[in-house]
Amino acid sequence: LSEAAYLALDWGTTHRRTYVMDPAGTVVARERDGRGVLSIPPGGYPHELAALRARFGPLPAIAAGMVGSARGWREVPYVPAPAGAAQLAAALTCIETDDLLIVPGLSLREAGRSDVMRGEEVQVLGAVVAGLAPADALFCQPGTHNKWIELEGGRIVRFTTAMTGEIFALLRDHSLLSEMLGGEVEDGHAFRDGVAAAQEEGGLLAQMFGIRAAVLLESRPRESAAAFTSGLLIGSDVASAGVQGRTIHLLADATLGPLYAVAIQLLGGRVALVDSEAAFAAGIHHIRGLSQ
Amino acid sequence: LSEAAYLALDWGTTHRRTYVMDPAGTVVARERDGRGVLSIPPGGYPHELAALRARFGPLPAIAAGMVGSARGWREVPYVPAPAGAAQLAAALTCIETDDLLIVPGLSLREAGRSDVMRGEEVQVLGAVVAGLAPADALFCQPGTHNKWIELEGGRIVRFTTAMTGEIFALLRDHSLLSEMLGGEVEDGHAFRDGVAAAQEEGGLLAQMFGIRAAVLLESRPRESAAAFTSGLLIGSDVASAGVQGRTIHLLADATLGPLYAVAIQLLGGRVALVDSEAAFAAGIHHIRGLSQ
Repeated sequence: LSEAAYLALDWGTTHRRTYVMDPAGTVVARERDGRGVLSIPPGGYPHELAALRARFGPLPAIAAGMVGSARGWREVPYVPAPAGAAQLAAALTCIETDDLLIVPGLSLREAGRSDVMRGEEVQVLGAVVAGLAPADALFCQPGTHNKWIELEGGRIVRFTTAMTGEIFALLRDHSLLSEMLGGEVEDGHAFRDGVAAAQEEGGLLAQMFGIRAAVLLESRPRESAAAFTSGLLIGSDVASAGVQGRTIHLLADATLGPLYAVAIQLLGGRVALVDSEAAFAAGIHHIRGLSQ
Repeated sequence: LSEAAYLALDWGTTHRRTYVMDPAGTVVARERDGRGVLSIPPGGYPHELAALRARFGPLPAIAAGMVGSARGWREVPYVPAPAGAAQLAAALTCIETDDLLIVPGLSLREAGRSDVMRGEEVQVLGAVVAGLAPADALFCQPGTHNKWIELEGGRIVRFTTAMTGEIFALLRDHSLLSEMLGGEVEDGHAFRDGVAAAQEEGGLLAQMFGIRAAVLLESRPRESAAAFTSGLLIGSDVASAGVQGRTIHLLADATLGPLYAVAIQLLGGRVALVDSEAAFAAGIHHIRGLSQ
């Protein structure tokens, strides 16, 4: 098996990335599409994988992400943190009828708090394997749910998920602020004002209402309210993570990456960008190799 | 005019309270209905008031609340805080064709923050006039948007609005947590756990995601997630207000009042309940009297 090419899938809630890997772990082809878990009907997964094989060849496959959740192909139990690649490799779920391995997610139980992840673990562990980040590092992986992931000795020891992106979307799409949040979200004065506001006293729930009041009283232009709101939420998220004086290894796309980078730097952190596709490929190849 | 009976209206976004006042300011009849501003079509206000007069008599009227907003009968400019009843009385808007006075709301502009209110100002000023609260007092008025209002010498000197209730509704109706938030919201262990969680490090955005993780990992029963979430949000709101060692004058209904009272007490504050209908009647009568 380890001498053959294979398919590696980063199969999330809304998107799917497919990598054709050669036996040495080099990506020889890649594809990104919108066939995330939410778009696949119950029972539709074998057909989805067969369609990929029709395009890329009859290769064995390994997948990580929400495909292993209750909404996905099969629910794979979480591996409790702290954990590294060896623990994930030992807990792979095999769906033999489809020649597919699914990587488990991680769970965290600490006094008073719980957390879970599915998919991000492969990227951060892979970043270390590929030499893209040190074995002791704090990662930030923005998205609908932003993840802060702490590695020690190449193992994930703790992590925190923040609903930052989802709360922004709720405010924009469904709240009293909706009519004010149609503007562009980009770095600039308004975004940075929002990051600064998040550091002030008063609490996030009050600061959110203050956005509406500032527009009504014309102390903030309506067009800049969305960028300010994004800065407020990302600034709150970054402040809670305690980035001052630390290097944050940022796994992010072209939209959220620059915004998080600015907020981290404004709050006294340093930013090291990590290529998330290279990290995923390295991680999944390493985990697959350990399981053989 | 001051020797006649009149109608006093607390006309908000979703509800309307009508009081028939005798010349001395005693409430002789009252009615509550769902004819809030959101339910009135454009141009429909004169008809609404005429319908009230058909029931209660051809009396002059005075109204406060969102009826004076851009969505209401007529937009009445805000009076800047600090302000008391005299400033509100001096800024009443008169709609002569309908024999109606509308009380303006208040605006606040401080370094870095803005806030607005419409309607709450009548209740808190009235509470002092009626002897239901001292002239120096901190009020809490829960609702979709919770208000903290600071009075000094009987004037409103500053206030803060928090989106607490609206964020709870967004999480329950539109978020990833929706399916978990169908349970009862009431005081109990789960609510109090939420209040306590809000005092811990980590930030509100992460604590919200932790609710989902705790249910997935079965460290919190699904039925109690709604009460915990309410405790988390109200606990965050109350903590930001700085209630420790203070008496909070609580103007609240039977649903939110007990929850805020518990959170205030858990965070070291004392609670004095204020009858919001009595406070409104006293406030509107006082403001109307000053304008004559």
